[in-house]
Amino acid sequence: SCWSKTPTNGSAPNIIIMLMDDMGWGDLGVFGQPSKETPNLDRMAAEGMVFPNFYASNPLCSPSRASLLTGRLPVRNGFYTTNAHARNAYTPQEIVGGISDDEILLPQMLKKMGYINKIVGKWHLGHRPHHLPLDHGFDEWFGAPNCHFGPYNSSFRPNIPVYNNSQMVGRYYEEFKINVKTGESNLTQIYLEESLEFLRAQASIRRPFFLYWAVDATHAPVYASKRFLGRSQRGRYGDAVIELDYSVGVILKELRRLGVAKDTFVFFTSDNGAAVMSGPKQSGSNGPFLCGKETTFEGGMREPAIAWWPGHITAGTVSYQLGNIMDLFTTSLALAGLTMPDDRIIDGLDLTPVLLNDSLIDRPIFYYRGNEMMAVRVGQYKAHYWTWSNSWEEFNKGINFCPGQDVAGVTTHTQKEHTMQPLIFHLGRDPGEKYPIRQVFRPHPDAATRAVLVPKLLHCSTRRETFGGDACGSANVMSGEYQAILQKISLVVEQHKSGLVPGVPQLNMCDLAVMNWAPAGCEKMGKCLKAPKSQPWKCEWPH
Amino acid sequence: SCWSKTPTNGSAPNIIIMLMDDMGWGDLGVFGQPSKETPNLDRMAAEGMVFPNFYASNPLCSPSRASLLTGRLPVRNGFYTTNAHARNAYTPQEIVGGISDDEILLPQMLKKMGYINKIVGKWHLGHRPHHLPLDHGFDEWFGAPNCHFGPYNSSFRPNIPVYNNSQMVGRYYEEFKINVKTGESNLTQIYLEESLEFLRAQASIRRPFFLYWAVDATHAPVYASKRFLGRSQRGRYGDAVIELDYSVGVILKELRRLGVAKDTFVFFTSDNGAAVMSGPKQSGSNGPFLCGKETTFEGGMREPAIAWWPGHITAGTVSYQLGNIMDLFTTSLALAGLTMPDDRIIDGLDLTPVLLNDSLIDRPIFYYRGNEMMAVRVGQYKAHYWTWSNSWEEFNKGINFCPGQDVAGVTTHTQKEHTMQPLIFHLGRDPGEKYPIRQVFRPHPDAATRAVLVPKLLHCSTRRETFGGDACGSANVMSGEYQAILQKISLVVEQHKSGLVPGVPQLNMCDLAVMNWAPAGCEKMGKCLKAPKSQPWKCEWPH
Ligand SMILES: [Ca+2]
Ligand SMILES: [Ca+2]
Repeated sequence: SCWSKTPTNGSAPNIIIMLMDDMGWGDLGVFGQPSKETPNLDRMAAEGMVFPNFYASNPLCSPSRASLLTGRLPVRNGFYTTNAHARNAYTPQEIVGGISDDEILLPQMLKKMGYINKIVGKWHLGHRPHHLPLDHGFDEWFGAPNCHFGPYNSSFRPNIPVYNNSQMVGRYYEEFKINVKTGESNLTQIYLEESLEFLRAQASIRRPFFLYWAVDATHAPVYASKRFLGRSQRGRYGDAVIELDYSVGVILKELRRLGVAKDTFVFFTSDNGAAVMSGPKQSGSNGPFLCGKETTFEGGMREPAIAWWPGHITAGTVSYQLGNIMDLFTTSLALAGLTMPDDRIIDGLDLTPVLLNDSLIDRPIFYYRGNEMMAVRVGQYKAHYWTWSNSWEEFNKGINFCPGQDVAGVTTHTQKEHTMQPLIFHLGRDPGEKYPIRQVFRPHPDAATRAVLVPKLLHCSTRRETFGGDACGSANVMSGEYQAILQKISLVVEQHKSGLVPGVPQLNMCDLAVMNWAPAGCEKMGKCLKAPKSQPWKCEWPH
Repeated sequence: SCWSKTPTNGSAPNIIIMLMDDMGWGDLGVFGQPSKETPNLDRMAAEGMVFPNFYASNPLCSPSRASLLTGRLPVRNGFYTTNAHARNAYTPQEIVGGISDDEILLPQMLKKMGYINKIVGKWHLGHRPHHLPLDHGFDEWFGAPNCHFGPYNSSFRPNIPVYNNSQMVGRYYEEFKINVKTGESNLTQIYLEESLEFLRAQASIRRPFFLYWAVDATHAPVYASKRFLGRSQRGRYGDAVIELDYSVGVILKELRRLGVAKDTFVFFTSDNGAAVMSGPKQSGSNGPFLCGKETTFEGGMREPAIAWWPGHITAGTVSYQLGNIMDLFTTSLALAGLTMPDDRIIDGLDLTPVLLNDSLIDRPIFYYRGNEMMAVRVGQYKAHYWTWSNSWEEFNKGINFCPGQDVAGVTTHTQKEHTMQPLIFHLGRDPGEKYPIRQVFRPHPDAATRAVLVPKLLHCSTRRETFGGDACGSANVMSGEYQAILQKISLVVEQHKSGLVPGVPQLNMCDLAVMNWAPAGCEKMGKCLKAPKSQPWKCEWPH
């Protein structure tokens, strides 16, 4: 029945995934950003379906992007490290690993159905030749393999190359300028033009296409084109958002102009939460959620998400479905009429019943940091088995993943284990993860008295003084609510862990020799650099 | 020119002010509440004008409501205390004072233009006979003079009476039930019915009307009708919001059915920020803002606000105008074709050019706590001259106005004076008031390096270690940005203070004898209680 609304003309829709970089849940007008500067995205939401409960698979770029394209958790597809416990790892230039040839990527699958696949923007699944997009199912690529960090001293670190398909066409901060002082760069315009040309070309030959639009203007150092700089009420970060919003508007308009809007499924989301550790000029907003990028609190992984497909998705709907970036793999396959790979576990869910019939499918959300399942969400409840923001050492240096926020016993600076008695939050009434469900029974005070001023759900052990010794210090009797939830969640976790065979970790080794010294095409440009001798080491992931 | 779009039929529009109680900025779907359970308000916003920068005049019920109806700051209309410095005062039952006869209230003015005025719900401008609504311009009233706290032991404290016009018709927790255990009460339905009847009656006699719909289901203890209980994803508070949202939808639909929608100006807002100190079951959301009710941080005073007037206000617009609840007085007078009282200072702004022509008017927002101007907003900048959440004594008892939030040097538990060097925030890029603009000059580090991880705008004195001794410890040279802003803001503050003649404080004295022992009408009901002997004392306002 969930197929009843798939394209009636028998052809699979075009697919556009618009993936933002470090954009937070709270960065869009429709998600409550106070400056309300995203009219195009807000309109897209009004014409489509909004997901307030959509998640990244990881609070970091590379693993989240690997999940999007493989439909699998990072711990399965290898985008994690085992060098230390519960560490965030990604693909900086010195990383040796990248996407494994054993993984099946979305464009490889779509190819079987005749799709033309293009990625525009940031790849981030490894930058060595065998890791690059054209080796993993994409027909075309315009963009860069790594983040646009820089400028680097090219004798020590090369600047990141920009590729046109398999050939480098320049480097960031050289041919592709980003002025980190003013924030000016026309990269978003270039990425927009590349996308529009692709759309026009495919529309003219009437072949189905997959466009993975992985723009990165909202990743620090944030940038915007000259005509967008200074436009936002909220500074440079807002300028970048306004330009991206504008670009979304242009793309949707072009789909209509080309007459393919009703044949094109568009999904907008972000790869991880706003990087609030970068300060207000270089980062966005996670709305009412706790902390941000790098953490497994909601601010690290809850993402803005909008699905758009005129004539198929009912305009102006809100879906409470728990969604995950991995679902874009599975859903895209379903839309294309493909069956899932059956030789491996796919974590992504097919969202087509949600999109087309407004169904709700029960499914958990897992919050990983490296090789550790830190937390799990089941329904409205989220259980933290481990809590950590970052180490005291980093925190004392001024690196703060939760600026202005401090929840005792929750935003911890040691890796705190709660596996025997997880901290559980009700995300409906407490989206900010401030009030753990009480674990121990105590008599309920009369809510009608002035005692309503005293928060009632605080974790007893951290706030014993509030309730007096008797209530919290009494015999270890679990509260009924806590016990019922824990039982339900424990089953989900048990099932998850029993079936889990971690993939070979790809993000353990680093080597200066593997950096982007001499990307394909560098000879023609006279831009090859000499790599140092190979001296691999185990990468250090501090958080 | 701002009058060019006023009703062309020459008649003044009906006016409905929908005032919520303790509802937060982040409680509506359109303002980013994650559960998105306010379809009627979201539609009202889509059909009207949204104000993301709208403020209460005070972080507390009574003063804010007094400002709405007088167009004046509490420090002018007397709704403040001088018993202690910078204290929040309101009108509990033991308060002796209330709205002064010297104040001119909105309904008194509207009466001159033939309006029929009704208040439905909570009055909160004093409960003694000469303070009640029918003595201050309202023709009709159904509701209560105080908050629905209770149940009280009637020998010590009477339950709050509910009035129908000048006569008591029962008391909360007696004839008008609120089950504080289950949260069940049909009060919102009663307040809805009272309003609908009023609308129908006025529409049939074609007289202009003013309806002040002051519902209070979102004030602790929160309540909802049986059919709404359990509906929300976010618990009882959400149930109350859903019922209020439903009621808004019914009222707007009724206006259309009666054929008066285009002749009725409707404004929706709240009297102060969400009471986050009450915990997640009894309070709402202030979205990305700092702290809540009782404080002069954004969470205490930034309010959801929607204006609706089909055919006059352009649908789907966002106004960046800095608005204030006091503006509803001034704007209503302008809409009714009345001139302002000229014998007193009116703080409210006429928003008709904003509403009808999308103009932007420069004006400051003042944040008072009692008799102290704690902060001021000018443009995007907000300067705190005093910071205080609550006292250490209260905080240590578990009363927390900023749960889960902690901004060093900002959310202080002593009344901290910054008058010589106010803390200044840019609310556009930092709506959460986490990063004070740096006060002292230091060289700007290169944003392109990994140093972007270090927040750059932290107040040096509180985070000296981040920047090293040289940068922050050097000579006391004000940074250019700070100096320029401070200069601008200082002029505004100087002008404000030089013209300020505080009104006689009405909230200084308390007396058990003045409580609602024997309201008018109690004899007929056999519900008169005996008042104790008068023993006035200076009210204690702890925060
Ligand atoms: Ca990212
Ligand atoms: Ca209130």
